[in-house]
Amino acid sequence: MPKLDLESIEQTNRTGYPPPFAEPMAKRLYRRLAQAAGLTDFGVSHVLLEPGGISSQRHWHEGEDEIVIMIDGEAVLVEDEGETVMRPGDCAAFPKGVANGHHLVNRSDRPCIFYAIGRWADSDCHYPDIDLHLDGKTQKFVRKDGSDY
Amino acid sequence: MPKLDLESIEQTNRTGYPPPFAEPMAKRLYRRLAQAAGLTDFGVSHVLLEPGGISSQRHWHEGEDEIVIMIDGEAVLVEDEGETVMRPGDCAAFPKGVANGHHLVNRSDRPCIFYAIGRWADSDCHYPDIDLHLDGKTQKFVRKDGSDY
Repeated sequence: MPKLDLESIEQTNRTGYPPPFAEPMAKRLYRRLAQAAGLTDFGVSHVLLEPGGISSQRHWHEGEDEIVIMIDGEAVLVEDEGETVMRPGDCAAFPKGVANGHHLVNRSDRPCIFYAIGRWADSDCHYPDIDLHLDGKTQKFVRKDGSDY
Repeated sequence: MPKLDLESIEQTNRTGYPPPFAEPMAKRLYRRLAQAAGLTDFGVSHVLLEPGGISSQRHWHEGEDEIVIMIDGEAVLVEDEGETVMRPGDCAAFPKGVANGHHLVNRSDRPCIFYAIGRWADSDCHYPDIDLHLDGKTQKFVRKDGSDY
C-alpha cells in the first residue's frame, strides 16, 4: 500500500559523525523512508527528537536542497539569522549553496516529530560551529584542515 | 528566513486539465513553495482541499517519484488496491513507474491540508479512469489515442 506503515520501518539513532559530535545525536530517532518505499529521486526521513535532541550538527550543503515539515510538538530552528519556533504544519526550506548553517533543536519537555526531505549529491557539507567537514567526493567526515578523524 | 511564510506565497486553484476534467479541481487550493524558496532539486506544494475536493485526477507518473504528508484534517487515498484514510502525520509514497493510479479525496466536512513533494521530469503521466494522458515530451494533455483536446 502506498500509505507507509511507519512502525514497520526501522527506527535508529545511528550517526556517521565522529566523536565528540556523535554524542548529541543519541536523542534523534529516525526512519529512512525512501528506500523502504522504493523512491530514488529524493530521500525522506521521519524524525523524532526527544527533549534535548538536535536534528543534526548545524550545517549547510553545497549541492543538496533540503526541507523540513513539522508534524507534532515544537522545535527551534537555529541559523545564522537567529532562531525561529517551528510548529505543526510549518515548513522550512534550505536551498543548496546558501552558506547559512541550520538545524532543529528540541528545547521543549516532550518529543517533536518532523519529516526531512533532501536529494543526495556528492557535495561538500559545512559545519560552521565545529571542527568538522564532509568531503563530498569521499563522503568522509574530516577536520576543517582536511585531516582525518 | 528559511521558515516559509505561507501566507505570503500565492494560493491558487489553477489547473492545466482540459474540460471537463478541470472542474473538479476548483476545491484544490495550492501554493507552490519550491520556486518561492529557491529550491530546484524537487517541487513542494502546500495543498488545501475543501470538502469534496480532490488532489488531482487519479494518475501515475512514469518518471516522477511523489510523496504526500498529511498535516491537518482527513483525506481518503484512492488507488487500485482500494481506499486508505490519511490522517495528520501519515505519509504515502508513489514510486515512479508503478502503474497504480492514486489521488486524495476529501470526503469529510472540513478542509484538509497536506504537503506534496515530487521531482519534475519530462515523463508521461497516465490517468486510468478518464480519457486523458500527459505527453512527457510536449507536456501537453491529450486524449488516450494521442489526439488534441
